[in-house]
Amino acid sequence: MKAGVHINASCGGRGACGKCRVRMAAGTLSSSVHPSIGEEEYAAGVRLACISSVSGDAVIEIPLESQVDRSVLRRSTVMSDVDAGGIDEALLSEYGREPLVERYDLDVPRPDAQDNVSDAARIARALASKPGCGEPVVLPLSVMHDLGTKLRDADWNVTVDVAMSGQREATGITKGNAAGSHYAIAVDIGTTTVAAQLLACDGGEGKGIILASSSDYNRQISFGEDVISRIMYAGKRDGLRKLQEVVVSTVNLLIGELLGEADVDRADISHVVVAGNTTMMHLFYGIEPKHIMLAPYTPLATAFPPLGCGEIGLEAAAHTRLFAIPGVSSYVGGDIVSGVALSGMTERDDVSLFMDIGTNGEIVLGNGQWLLCASCSAGPAFEGGGIEFGTRAAPGAIEKVRINPVTLEPMILTVGRKKPLGICGSGLIDIVAELLLAGVIDRNGKFSAERRTKRVRDGSNGREYVLCFASETHIERDIVITEIDLDNIIRTKAAVYAGCSVLLENGGLAFGDLDMVIIAGGFGHSIDIEKAIAIGLLPELPIERFRFMGNASLGGARVAAVSCGFFEKAGQVARSMTNIELSNNAQFMDEFMAAMFLPHTDGRAFPETMKALKNGSRFQVPGSRS
Amino acid sequence: MKAGVHINASCGGRGACGKCRVRMAAGTLSSSVHPSIGEEEYAAGVRLACISSVSGDAVIEIPLESQVDRSVLRRSTVMSDVDAGGIDEALLSEYGREPLVERYDLDVPRPDAQDNVSDAARIARALASKPGCGEPVVLPLSVMHDLGTKLRDADWNVTVDVAMSGQREATGITKGNAAGSHYAIAVDIGTTTVAAQLLACDGGEGKGIILASSSDYNRQISFGEDVISRIMYAGKRDGLRKLQEVVVSTVNLLIGELLGEADVDRADISHVVVAGNTTMMHLFYGIEPKHIMLAPYTPLATAFPPLGCGEIGLEAAAHTRLFAIPGVSSYVGGDIVSGVALSGMTERDDVSLFMDIGTNGEIVLGNGQWLLCASCSAGPAFEGGGIEFGTRAAPGAIEKVRINPVTLEPMILTVGRKKPLGICGSGLIDIVAELLLAGVIDRNGKFSAERRTKRVRDGSNGREYVLCFASETHIERDIVITEIDLDNIIRTKAAVYAGCSVLLENGGLAFGDLDMVIIAGGFGHSIDIEKAIAIGLLPELPIERFRFMGNASLGGARVAAVSCGFFEKAGQVARSMTNIELSNNAQFMDEFMAAMFLPHTDGRAFPETMKALKNGSRFQVPGSRS
Repeated sequence: MKAGVHINASCGGRGACGKCRVRMAAGTLSSSVHPSIGEEEYAAGVRLACISSVSGDAVIEIPLESQVDRSVLRRSTVMSDVDAGGIDEALLSEYGREPLVERYDLDVPRPDAQDNVSDAARIARALASKPGCGEPVVLPLSVMHDLGTKLRDADWNVTVDVAMSGQREATGITKGNAAGSHYAIAVDIGTTTVAAQLLACDGGEGKGIILASSSDYNRQISFGEDVISRIMYAGKRDGLRKLQEVVVSTVNLLIGELLGEADVDRADISHVVVAGNTTMMHLFYGIEPKHIMLAPYTPLATAFPPLGCGEIGLEAAAHTRLFAIPGVSSYVGGDIVSGVALSGMTERDDVSLFMDIGTNGEIVLGNGQWLLCASCSAGPAFEGGGIEFGTRAAPGAIEKVRINPVTLEPMILTVGRKKPLGICGSGLIDIVAELLLAGVIDRNGKFSAERRTKRVRDGSNGREYVLCFASETHIERDIVITEIDLDNIIRTKAAVYAGCSVLLENGGLAFGDLDMVIIAGGFGHSIDIEKAIAIGLLPELPIERFRFMGNASLGGARVAAVSCGFFEKAGQVARSMTNIELSNNAQFMDEFMAAMFLPHTDGRAFPETMKALKNGSRFQVPGSRS
Repeated sequence: MKAGVHINASCGGRGACGKCRVRMAAGTLSSSVHPSIGEEEYAAGVRLACISSVSGDAVIEIPLESQVDRSVLRRSTVMSDVDAGGIDEALLSEYGREPLVERYDLDVPRPDAQDNVSDAARIARALASKPGCGEPVVLPLSVMHDLGTKLRDADWNVTVDVAMSGQREATGITKGNAAGSHYAIAVDIGTTTVAAQLLACDGGEGKGIILASSSDYNRQISFGEDVISRIMYAGKRDGLRKLQEVVVSTVNLLIGELLGEADVDRADISHVVVAGNTTMMHLFYGIEPKHIMLAPYTPLATAFPPLGCGEIGLEAAAHTRLFAIPGVSSYVGGDIVSGVALSGMTERDDVSLFMDIGTNGEIVLGNGQWLLCASCSAGPAFEGGGIEFGTRAAPGAIEKVRINPVTLEPMILTVGRKKPLGICGSGLIDIVAELLLAGVIDRNGKFSAERRTKRVRDGSNGREYVLCFASETHIERDIVITEIDLDNIIRTKAAVYAGCSVLLENGGLAFGDLDMVIIAGGFGHSIDIEKAIAIGLLPELPIERFRFMGNASLGGARVAAVSCGFFEKAGQVARSMTNIELSNNAQFMDEFMAAMFLPHTDGRAFPETMKALKNGSRFQVPGSRS
């Protein structure tokens, strides 16, 4: 990490996850043994980086599966059913295209003996005459310092940035009329990835707003893969400062890339809008996250006041303002609020379900009148955590799997069509669904005694199905899925489904009442809905009721950046959400136990899946395209 | 100055005023000659500090008249007709006793599974339940940092400071319930002196608010005595920063003294309210003052947003906020607005005239419906500037003079009853009035050929009247008043009177319509009203219509500190004042020329004075106590 080399470490370097495998090519490391490294591997020099220390000159190889490779992120946000531009336009025509920081060209009247009110008052007066700028504007001391000379040097033609949310404040004054070069940046700060877009603020109706996009892994992943590891790290000496520093540096990197790509001047960025989960926001703003993970899970804050970007170390001009989409609770953050606001579900009378399945499954139910939200600690299975060969959707990750119902042989597709090195979330859903439909596993997720194949065997962690033999893989080890893995996946999907059930019950509704199921998040876009239904992660509904929204958090931040009306709406969404705490919730525990079955204990909720299981036929939900 | 020794220097060290006399007691200085130093004095080692440089070891004596001695300032604000406590109480009962930063003891409800909204939201909710705290309160990032731990360590009992003006903002959160120890500081930043008071914010009705008072010379006086010299110095390299530094250090010194005197903890100061003229505010906040002195005299700003005290270098706790009473124009500043608000003239239907005579004479005319204001560049005569033996009201300054109408011998009183070293403003007014009434000078301010006395003689600057012979003085030189001095005084009084005339004409009124003449400022309290009328500085009105307000600027800042309602009112006063520019104003020039006579060209405006002059009798205005 000191040398800028980032290695996978789900557990944050506590010697728990076994993901940070490296190989000593020369020299030695002082290193402990670890159950995840076999004797033969140990002899070959394989070590876990986190429990090794350098005791002299050494050459260390970092195998592909341990690398943090951002190339996959370039596949950027995919929106299948809806397209970003269309959503943006629809929302902008509803909420107005007035950026969160508006930029005005001012031709300030020169003072004379009859009218010699102060320079500051002249600016305020000139602003007051602009449409939509009725409220009085505060000039902070920072823009006052040399205003007198600046105004006169500019011959009284200046560009003034005005923050339109919160206190009306002139955030910057520059010489000349420059409102034509006006940009903003939207950032989604995820636990795993950070995505950013450069936006045009000066466009008219019908003009696109996205000028460039970029994303990278959150550099905090070296300090732990999930929010809990990060919060624990933040509690160490100087830990919070370090975590803030690395996430800010990640954002700085992206900002630099966006500016370079679009050849835009840093000074022309008037504001940055961020959205992220509550923990990420605490770390980004550098405030103590400790109580997020301690019952009763009270965050320090879910809303953050507008700031100068420089106050938290963002590399931006002095005048560039930072806004955050507010969140609801410790585990329903601004990323979810941003996505819900973007989804349009609050513009409808029909009830929709919004799901963002990552390490936590965050779910929101409601319509224009009411919103219920919850977070089910689904566990990181779909992001590769707790799964023996689990991995993020990096090149070589198995993302699609079909199992021949007769031969029980698998057919796999990997990200980037590279030699396989692990299994990512969508691959895991496919595997479980295919194993179930092929009868290789039963509805408990145990390997069935009836369907025999050489691919099912006893491994060191119990029975397992071999997806790829060592020779076909990049990592030269058999890639398998174990009964422990299956159990983890079932727990995860059960938590999500149970969470949805609880919200519906609280809303007096059933799954069938859902008009729309919105699947947000980077993970969402790659899953196969029919497989997800087959394992009972998603409810069995006609396929046309499902919508993929991709990175809805980034989308909401993007629209908020160019529409203060939409930013205010996001605030209303946050305030109107009723958070239902699922931990220690008896109703949730009942639903969770009922969902610990494939697809579910209550087969009536999955009639088509049950029919397919009974008939051994291929499963198809109504409305399916296939 | 580098050694912390401050010397009088009206001109700011440009070799112009001749006030910074020092004596070489040993060693030598490289020094130029100067017309203000006679040959004999030069031989005796007298030099001007500003045109001398140290070329080797030397012992330099600083004579009393060159010293900046703050002891006189201890005579503190005198209010003759009204008393501070009475005004404060009357205004507080009208505008409410709610400090600009209110301090709330909060017993924040603990979170539990049913109610785990964020710590920040809990604070906001607890605040919302407090009376008078309806608006939503913003928590800045600075108070969020360790709020979680702080709340829990304090067992959810905290004290929250909330800024009640501008954006409602929680400025500080401290452990425990401390609203009982709540203080503020009011500061008047004058060109010459800075005065401050420590105020109790937690008192009930009828309880006094002044806990301690202190004042000192503005350390900027070494950089020039008047605002123009300061503005010129600010234009030099690093000049603005230096001037800001020294005035801030002056305020810091006073704050330290106040806290020590009252044994109050610095952290218990929730806010500081400053008032000062427009130039002083520019220098205090560190913004470019240049255009104040260039036509059309446009200040950079007359209102300043609330800040953290630390942002400009005040030694205060991180949470202590800084507010400023807003001003009107380059030469009618927050000090005048503060005084006008305090004076009560805007609560009346009758028309009052408010005057603050210092280097500039600032005057305000009006009532509850309208306000006109102007600044007449009176010149610094009444502060000793441009007068050969002029001095500030320091110990040894001649402050009262009577001239025997028969013998024409003077009787003098000095500040602190010390041996005389110069003449201060009230002394100058007395001298001119007494010389006039005794017939020693005529209505043009020239020595009359008719009344002969050995005290009138030809000096190096024309004819002069000897007030004290060298042997009776501290400075061992004759103290005289010359015809040039007389001319300067007449110009000064004429400018003030002409300014008042112009305001009255613009208001469609005459002096006789004035219900009240309010005389504010440190200078004001020591003048003899009858003498000031006799020379035509003040209009001839019944004496009971005059009110002395002492340091009304400080008074207004004081009431604003403990009453946000009054602070808002001061803002309204500033906005409702119509500034009349007198420079290059033909009407003003006419009035000025007419006033260049003792008491005035139009004797009908001064019937009693004219009668006394005619009869050679003692002058007495109607309603006078004597």
